[in-house]
Amino acid sequence: MSESTVAPVAPASTATTPATGRPASSYGAAPHDPSKPPVKRQIVCFSFYKVMPEWRRLPAEEREAHKKAFAAVLAKWNKPGEFLSLTYSTTGTRGDVDMCVWSIGYGVDELNEMRSELMSTPLAGYLTTPHNFLAMTKRSQYQIDRPDESESEGRGAIRPGGQKYIFIYPFWKTRPWYLLSMEERKRLMDEHIRVGLAYPRVKLNTTYSFGLDDQEFVVAFETNFPEDFLDLVQQLRETEASLYTLKDFPIFSCVRLSPEEMLNRLG
Amino acid sequence: MSESTVAPVAPASTATTPATGRPASSYGAAPHDPSKPPVKRQIVCFSFYKVMPEWRRLPAEEREAHKKAFAAVLAKWNKPGEFLSLTYSTTGTRGDVDMCVWSIGYGVDELNEMRSELMSTPLAGYLTTPHNFLAMTKRSQYQIDRPDESESEGRGAIRPGGQKYIFIYPFWKTRPWYLLSMEERKRLMDEHIRVGLAYPRVKLNTTYSFGLDDQEFVVAFETNFPEDFLDLVQQLRETEASLYTLKDFPIFSCVRLSPEEMLNRLG
Amino acid sequence: MSESTVAPVAPASTATTPATGRPASSYGAAPHDPSKPPVKRQIVCFSFYKVMPEWRRLPAEEREAHKKAFAAVLAKWNKPGEFLSLTYSTTGTRGDVDMCVWSIGYGVDELNEMRSELMSTPLAGYLTTPHNFLAMTKRSQYQIDRPDESESEGRGAIRPGGQKYIFIYPFWKTRPWYLLSMEERKRLMDEHIRVGLAYPRVKLNTTYSFGLDDQEFVVAFETNFPEDFLDLVQQLRETEASLYTLKDFPIFSCVRLSPEEMLNRLG
Amino acid sequence: MSESTVAPVAPASTATTPATGRPASSYGAAPHDPSKPPVKRQIVCFSFYKVMPEWRRLPAEEREAHKKAFAAVLAKWNKPGEFLSLTYSTTGTRGDVDMCVWSIGYGVDELNEMRSELMSTPLAGYLTTPHNFLAMTKRSQYQIDRPDESESEGRGAIRPGGQKYIFIYPFWKTRPWYLLSMEERKRLMDEHIRVGLAYPRVKLNTTYSFGLDDQEFVVAFETNFPEDFLDLVQQLRETEASLYTLKDFPIFSCVRLSPEEMLNRLG
Amino acid sequence: MSESTVAPVAPASTATTPATGRPASSYGAAPHDPSKPPVKRQIVCFSFYKVMPEWRRLPAEEREAHKKAFAAVLAKWNKPGEFLSLTYSTTGTRGDVDMCVWSIGYGVDELNEMRSELMSTPLAGYLTTPHNFLAMTKRSQYQIDRPDESESEGRGAIRPGGQKYIFIYPFWKTRPWYLLSMEERKRLMDEHIRVGLAYPRVKLNTTYSFGLDDQEFVVAFETNFPEDFLDLVQQLRETEASLYTLKDFPIFSCVRLSPEEMLNRLG
Repeated sequence: MSESTVAPVAPASTATTPATGRPASSYGAAPHDPSKPPVKRQIVCFSFYKVMPEWRRLPAEEREAHKKAFAAVLAKWNKPGEFLSLTYSTTGTRGDVDMCVWSIGYGVDELNEMRSELMSTPLAGYLTTPHNFLAMTKRSQYQIDRPDESESEGRGAIRPGGQKYIFIYPFWKTRPWYLLSMEERKRLMDEHIRVGLAYPRVKLNTTYSFGLDDQEFVVAFETNFPEDFLDLVQQLRETEASLYTLKDFPIFSCVRLSPEEMLNRLG
Repeated sequence: MSESTVAPVAPASTATTPATGRPASSYGAAPHDPSKPPVKRQIVCFSFYKVMPEWRRLPAEEREAHKKAFAAVLAKWNKPGEFLSLTYSTTGTRGDVDMCVWSIGYGVDELNEMRSELMSTPLAGYLTTPHNFLAMTKRSQYQIDRPDESESEGRGAIRPGGQKYIFIYPFWKTRPWYLLSMEERKRLMDEHIRVGLAYPRVKLNTTYSFGLDDQEFVVAFETNFPEDFLDLVQQLRETEASLYTLKDFPIFSCVRLSPEEMLNRLG
Repeated sequence: MSESTVAPVAPASTATTPATGRPASSYGAAPHDPSKPPVKRQIVCFSFYKVMPEWRRLPAEEREAHKKAFAAVLAKWNKPGEFLSLTYSTTGTRGDVDMCVWSIGYGVDELNEMRSELMSTPLAGYLTTPHNFLAMTKRSQYQIDRPDESESEGRGAIRPGGQKYIFIYPFWKTRPWYLLSMEERKRLMDEHIRVGLAYPRVKLNTTYSFGLDDQEFVVAFETNFPEDFLDLVQQLRETEASLYTLKDFPIFSCVRLSPEEMLNRLG
Repeated sequence: MSESTVAPVAPASTATTPATGRPASSYGAAPHDPSKPPVKRQIVCFSFYKVMPEWRRLPAEEREAHKKAFAAVLAKWNKPGEFLSLTYSTTGTRGDVDMCVWSIGYGVDELNEMRSELMSTPLAGYLTTPHNFLAMTKRSQYQIDRPDESESEGRGAIRPGGQKYIFIYPFWKTRPWYLLSMEERKRLMDEHIRVGLAYPRVKLNTTYSFGLDDQEFVVAFETNFPEDFLDLVQQLRETEASLYTLKDFPIFSCVRLSPEEMLNRLG
Repeated sequence: MSESTVAPVAPASTATTPATGRPASSYGAAPHDPSKPPVKRQIVCFSFYKVMPEWRRLPAEEREAHKKAFAAVLAKWNKPGEFLSLTYSTTGTRGDVDMCVWSIGYGVDELNEMRSELMSTPLAGYLTTPHNFLAMTKRSQYQIDRPDESESEGRGAIRPGGQKYIFIYPFWKTRPWYLLSMEERKRLMDEHIRVGLAYPRVKLNTTYSFGLDDQEFVVAFETNFPEDFLDLVQQLRETEASLYTLKDFPIFSCVRLSPEEMLNRLG
């Protein structure tokens, strides 16, 4: 498991040196230090959409036009360095949702405006949003510049969407966790991390939702090997830290596709 | 965190001198003293609306007319000193609701009548209300006079809506909390308050729902800095008082907009 | 708090002498004594209705006709001494329901028939019933005779609907409560009652649902002063008996209106 | 309470001699003995239907035709000795369902086919099934022969539907219950049974759902006296066995009616 | 109970020698060994569909065409050795779903594509998916070759669908289970297994969902004798391992039918 969560206490090179540079805890409540200089933090949103069955009764050409308009908004808001959206299909992996739009930007109002434009397309006349997770990074974590830009620009940042699958879920720790001493939490997370290191083909992204949404964290695991992720999660059940998990579902298995492909999987 | 909750035991100047004048507990059950003279208490209601997808299939001009009629009712009920409504968009931040109308007045029947008028507009033919929180202040807490009126009129009261974002959630404490001694509760809240004071850009409003609605409290945090609020909530997890939280969701991240802008974000 | 719950062990004059004649516990499981002569017990039902948004798209005259037909059934079933219905609006106080019909009669089949007639009106083509609470009194508790009849007819009974607001919720006690000794339960309820007596403007009605519906009790508090009820409920949290509450929601704040007014508040 | 649950250890005459022949526990997990000869066990299904409000907008003659076709399927499947259905109205007693079809037969596939025929009637174009409980008897428990047949045919079996009301709910015991010794369970159930014997006008039917449906048991109480059932359930709260109840709702109060009457109560 | 779960530690001949070759625990978290050579693991998906009542209002010929198109996709994706689907009716056994498609293949993207084709048929304009369970085997567990192929091809694999009924449910163990020593877990599972062996007519299939879906496991029991399965589950309640079950529902009783028969049972 390659860990790229960046808590304020982690050095900038965390993502490239996971074994030494990673934070003590991937889900821990790092002690807040308001005296630190502000960092440019990102707003992250995972929106899960479901098409109403009625949409599938429309003529094929009308559905095509709906898809085009929806994809056009996604394309318009693809602003290197400012706003990025990744698209996934959940057809067949979940019964309650059909697709996921994962957006990364720098402002809640900007996200509000972008989602409002998606909701102004004709497809939105047949869409519901059964799940929507709002979160922030602890600092700019994802590299959302153009792919052809210098690697050095994104040092320490993740380029999201590079794997075939993503597994997303909201996460809550129990309240007693937060009253453990920092040493005890570190001990528990060290065991947790040792398990993760055995699965280098799984990449973890952690974002924070305290006060912004129902959950405490949103975690997203990218991999080309679902079986690795299954085995990792099963093995993590045997760590002591697992006792401090309050809730870790719903879990969304998502297939990375272009906006057009994602929309075509709607039917 | 600037605390402006006004419990009966707090002096009138609470809002302007948070460090010394604030009540012992922001969520505590202040011992009731029915011998005290009655104060003019406010009725507070947070209504969260969702438009049905079908609405988005209507012709643009019809949707415009719907928005106008809805905004007209909001304008009609904007009665300085008597009834005030604030409007927020939740498009993109929540999947289950699209907008929030926060109303403050002096009577449940008045609120009932006002909401009935909103429900008589044509937009209401396409609206559901997935969440609605009814509450009261412990005394007149919000300043709802005209902005141009004397500051002295509103001494000790909050002028709501002055920040870009509001974070709203219902709140329940565990029953054992209420059986702690007042000294113990004060000790726990003092720690809670110390954390809050480190975030002066976050303004807390607490209202009371005991017996009026499912929750015990509705809390609303206004700020221009979502990251401050996230860090504050995360840090509060490490206080001992946090163990006495029974439930503190759903959490609504809301963008402050004029009624017209809010309605335009519907799509 | 004026207590008028009438358990089998209470004397007939309970309602008029609350301090001395009230039963030991308002929510307690009074030991059943099947050897006692049967009393005429009442069937009580609180039906909460929601109109579908589609109804609000109908022409005004059609909606008027719907309201008239619904009110006509309510009027037809207003049978002094046999069947009574009270009507309330919840527009603005709840998001999930719009109005409440509280009916009191003497038979489940009679209630079934009456509700069937309501469901045969055209308004029912646009109604759902998100909440419905069925209960019984322990004996004839409510006075449902004509208002002009002799007071002596209704001795010990409550004339419901005399206050501006009613607060209704289903209620469950924890199972350990029922295994406490009667003395211990009495001690706990005595404290509970002392708190209630400080709020004489709040009138409590308790009905029993064991085996008839999901909840154990349905409690309904009538008052003209919502703030009194809020303060009462908040203060009751500090009683020891409060620890034995399993669930006490959803809570419905309802505005007492005539059938016609209630229906007009639908929009 | 007349007990007619028939567990494998009970003699055939249980139903007629409740005090002596009843099994040790009405809800207990009787130790399975696979060496015993197979008995003819019955499949039992309680289907609760709700009509969509749209149905009530149809012309009266169309609704009449719908009712007729639905009743015809019920009549066709009334096969003495093979398959029996009983019909109940829940209009007014529940908000989520309108009617109940209780079927008793000998095969899951037969039930599947019968319900499929009900779903092929035009009324099914407006029906949902919010609750459906599948269960089995431990042996042939209900007498479903023609009423005019010899009593001796049905020895030890119950003729269901003979009372005006039925109260139905799914039931789960806590896991610790199942690890109590058989002696301890017997002691707890003896107390439970003593309470039940005080209510001879209430008849209990217990069926088993382990592995077939979400609940462990479905219990159905038939009586002409709802107040007896209410008092019985309230009094059972004070038994020690009550502490081992995990969940015992939703509870359905149902009025016994002919298929035609039940359908007429839909509106 | 014939156990055919194949965990990585089990020899290939597990299915044919359950008593000696079976893994220590059917639901246990077998310690992961990432050094082992990769095995060809299967993706398993149980999709439960519900037709909207509106579908039943369509002309019979239109519904026939819908069924044909749906069945054609199922037939097209019946690819021996690559992808297999089994079909079941739940009409009458569940209120929330009408049918189940159980698919077994080798890739999440393949499943996504197949389900997308099902959702492109006209029936999908009237379908919802209230439940959908995604899982994997620990290695190729099911034999999905042509029935006429050599038995030796499928050594150690299960040929699914050979029984009249299947009982499916998601399953979660409590977190403390995973911290028991392997010896203790083995002791508890040995008791569990002894009970299962008394029911040889029930065949258990276990699949793993850790991280892929909300549940930890999906278990599916195939049998021609529902009463055996009921008795087995009831008896398992008395094992100590049962205390470590966190959740084991919803439970789906399904009738094995050809695609055409399953679709005909929709009405």
